[in-house]
Amino acid sequence: MSSDFSATGLEHGHNGTGNILHMRRLGIDTYQEPVIYMRSDCHVCKSEGFEAQSRIEVWHGERRIIATLNVITSSLLKAQEAGLSESAWRALDGREGGAVRVMHPLPVQSFSQVRAKIYGKPITAEGAGAIIHDIVQGNYSDIQITSFIGACAGDRLDISETIALTRAMLAVGKRLQWDAHPIVDKHCVGGLPGNRTTPLVVSIVAACGLTIPKTSSRAITSPSGTADTMEVLAPVNLTIPQIRRVVAREGGCIVWGGAVSLSPADDILIRLERPLDLDSSGQLVASVLSKKIAAGSTHVVIDIPVGSTAKVRSRESAQTISAMLVSAGAAFGLTVKTVLTDGTQPVGRGIGPALEALDVLAVLQNQDHAPADLRRRALVLAAEVLELGGKAPPGAGLALAASILDSGAAWQKFQAICEAQGGLREPELASYRHDLLAPRSGHVAAVDNRRLARIAKLAGAPKAPSAGLLFHAPLGSLVTAGTALMTIHAESPGELAYARAYADSQADVIGVEEV
Amino acid sequence: MSSDFSATGLEHGHNGTGNILHMRRLGIDTYQEPVIYMRSDCHVCKSEGFEAQSRIEVWHGERRIIATLNVITSSLLKAQEAGLSESAWRALDGREGGAVRVMHPLPVQSFSQVRAKIYGKPITAEGAGAIIHDIVQGNYSDIQITSFIGACAGDRLDISETIALTRAMLAVGKRLQWDAHPIVDKHCVGGLPGNRTTPLVVSIVAACGLTIPKTSSRAITSPSGTADTMEVLAPVNLTIPQIRRVVAREGGCIVWGGAVSLSPADDILIRLERPLDLDSSGQLVASVLSKKIAAGSTHVVIDIPVGSTAKVRSRESAQTISAMLVSAGAAFGLTVKTVLTDGTQPVGRGIGPALEALDVLAVLQNQDHAPADLRRRALVLAAEVLELGGKAPPGAGLALAASILDSGAAWQKFQAICEAQGGLREPELASYRHDLLAPRSGHVAAVDNRRLARIAKLAGAPKAPSAGLLFHAPLGSLVTAGTALMTIHAESPGELAYARAYADSQADVIGVEEV
Repeated sequence: MSSDFSATGLEHGHNGTGNILHMRRLGIDTYQEPVIYMRSDCHVCKSEGFEAQSRIEVWHGERRIIATLNVITSSLLKAQEAGLSESAWRALDGREGGAVRVMHPLPVQSFSQVRAKIYGKPITAEGAGAIIHDIVQGNYSDIQITSFIGACAGDRLDISETIALTRAMLAVGKRLQWDAHPIVDKHCVGGLPGNRTTPLVVSIVAACGLTIPKTSSRAITSPSGTADTMEVLAPVNLTIPQIRRVVAREGGCIVWGGAVSLSPADDILIRLERPLDLDSSGQLVASVLSKKIAAGSTHVVIDIPVGSTAKVRSRESAQTISAMLVSAGAAFGLTVKTVLTDGTQPVGRGIGPALEALDVLAVLQNQDHAPADLRRRALVLAAEVLELGGKAPPGAGLALAASILDSGAAWQKFQAICEAQGGLREPELASYRHDLLAPRSGHVAAVDNRRLARIAKLAGAPKAPSAGLLFHAPLGSLVTAGTALMTIHAESPGELAYARAYADSQADVIGVEEV
Repeated sequence: MSSDFSATGLEHGHNGTGNILHMRRLGIDTYQEPVIYMRSDCHVCKSEGFEAQSRIEVWHGERRIIATLNVITSSLLKAQEAGLSESAWRALDGREGGAVRVMHPLPVQSFSQVRAKIYGKPITAEGAGAIIHDIVQGNYSDIQITSFIGACAGDRLDISETIALTRAMLAVGKRLQWDAHPIVDKHCVGGLPGNRTTPLVVSIVAACGLTIPKTSSRAITSPSGTADTMEVLAPVNLTIPQIRRVVAREGGCIVWGGAVSLSPADDILIRLERPLDLDSSGQLVASVLSKKIAAGSTHVVIDIPVGSTAKVRSRESAQTISAMLVSAGAAFGLTVKTVLTDGTQPVGRGIGPALEALDVLAVLQNQDHAPADLRRRALVLAAEVLELGGKAPPGAGLALAASILDSGAAWQKFQAICEAQGGLREPELASYRHDLLAPRSGHVAAVDNRRLARIAKLAGAPKAPSAGLLFHAPLGSLVTAGTALMTIHAESPGELAYARAYADSQADVIGVEEV
């Protein structure tokens, strides 16, 4: 039963009488949701009927935000003052004692489209545009954004809704344009701990002369995103002019997409998806494609790991997502090639930003102990990109990729890219560590990616870059009772204890069967 | 694609090291979501890796809450202090300077059931029990509760999920038991502004000697709930012993169900459903039935208004809800009779707590100008209750109900109930009013309940009890250009201006066609 009270027909900036208060920076960090603090006996609260948790429109000169009200019942504020949280202060460009005007915000019209979707109606192109616009403008509260995420979760978005969402996300972000052609790219839909092929693929492909301006995400529900891992090795928060300089010089880059506002909507959605651990196929496709298109890519290879505990659990659902990526991509003139890969266990040994970065360096430097599985996957994907980008005929990509890696050309290219991005850095190891031991001797018969990721997250990854775990027991390996199956790394004793408590409570995260 | 990282297997109360801080009451009202404030350089934040918006478990002696962290970057707090919001202070029974222990909370295990539902799996009886238990314990953040609401919205809950949810809601609340039999009750699923039959039905039915201990809700998405309207006339926040005394003396009561914790889960869900304006058939059925069963009812008549702008829009969906109510009720031994009523326009003249209370008084007092439609609906429902409760043979209920109302016996009973609840009060009229005029002469051809309700809500109802509107132009009535179609009432000039701005922007909330 819909109850669409929200469409108003009013134009933005209605004539409600503004009320003036003097702003004060309270130094309260509420993360991204802006909060305004007013006294309960303040004349504005009384005359406007504001109460705790009311949504309030706040103006400082030409700057405008919608903030959530917390009511002050103590002497923290004077009656003529409006306290601002840190995010509200920044968004309004606050000035101590300066005047802000507060009023009732208009009802957010586009939320009626979210409600309609919740009740089973498809999202239209117009609806998607309006929703994403309002989210980026800060007009949605956290619970409204959460409603939208839930409405799109699982398989609730069909192909036309997905295209509409992609277009809407593109419309609110910046777009890069390049003189070169083709512009190649690679992407992994995620869900496989340690699958850090991007720095390798970019290095190989750029070393072959293709243009690959790679923008990566931070973690959504995983212990590390490519941007998190790369940040351990070099700065990734580059501006668009900085990215242009890096790509002009080296042919490639590995930067955080969020820093350049290629998909600001996606960045906001991620902030709430992360604590909820919710995914949506349609949103995933829109998120990937909007970023690739915004980055100016023309040809992209997409890695879809499949495994019972990976993000994509079956070949069937991988094929669904693959088909959506290809056909939604085509709607924007983007050539998409998907690669279904093994998603039954982590890739490499490290899980968490710094530990994964060490794996990447080992492969690039052709170290003896470099994880062979990470190397192999990177070569397969680089081969696809080289073939898609016309640098190798079909079937010849793999040999070319391997020769570039073996010769050290990829490592040289990676160092050059890092230098161009601001300088190569050494990963640091965490101070607090704990081994989890094999309960019996035998061979490793099963690995639960999700619970491994959970342990790495509880240990502090990705916020604590050195946190995570080292995975010592790939599928099929033989282990002796009492040897370490994994080592948890943490930056604080509290986080180490927390990850241990969880790991100790779990049977068979790494399943050892007697031979 | 599910990513269920949240099931832990850990028992509640894990062994994470606690950290001691000294509590300070900051006097910040964040409504129901408890907030804890800590300095960014506080040793606990550092050692535990807490950041803004982290969920934190806080203990004060035996009392425990989960609170959201806001990080203080100013001198508001000392490094050893933990500031608490008003709701956190109350829940912990705070004491200035007293010691609180803070730690990472365990992942909320039941949220994996919410996630599974979002991805299309049905909610099990166990799952519903665990979710509702955790919500009532305060273990869910607002965005987690919002995800649950979205997952149940529309028609997403089937009958077995609805029964499971009803049982779960019953399990966390108190239950009343009565010696009398039958215990009758009435309920309206809502959505029709001004449909305030409850005080009338209870008065008539109790005057006939049936036992009707009526607990009502406050508004969810409407400008007034029965409890909001009744509160204008008498206290409704009664304790269970107080309710027992009222019912023992008068055979009936009209109190707020939330005050007696009959369905504490529902009260929490309502707090977030209201700003989102989201409904769910299954949750509606579970909410109604859990409250009726908890109140000890054995026979209940349920009013389902049907109309294109009512909460239930078609006979078809009314029949679906009706069938769910009857069969889920039967699973708990509750006899349910549903009555589909006209939902095409508001009932009576007032919309908003006090204005509706005035309509109720007019009918009870048999005033000449009493709204005939409200009177008629109340008699029809009272007749059904009288017949269901065995006080009148089939077909004879209406005459009995009318005679009780006409004789003044119902008004006497209502006064007696109000006195027993703490004393009858006079409704007050709001100070700020504005007439909306007919744009042309003609007859009233259409009325949009939803936009009328929206106007009343923007005027401040139900939080401002005198706010709302008087509706002067029922369907079919003849109006002259320039006469008032409705009068907006508000308690503050800001709210009046806001309701006017919205009303002025809307065409044909009350549609007048030239004759």
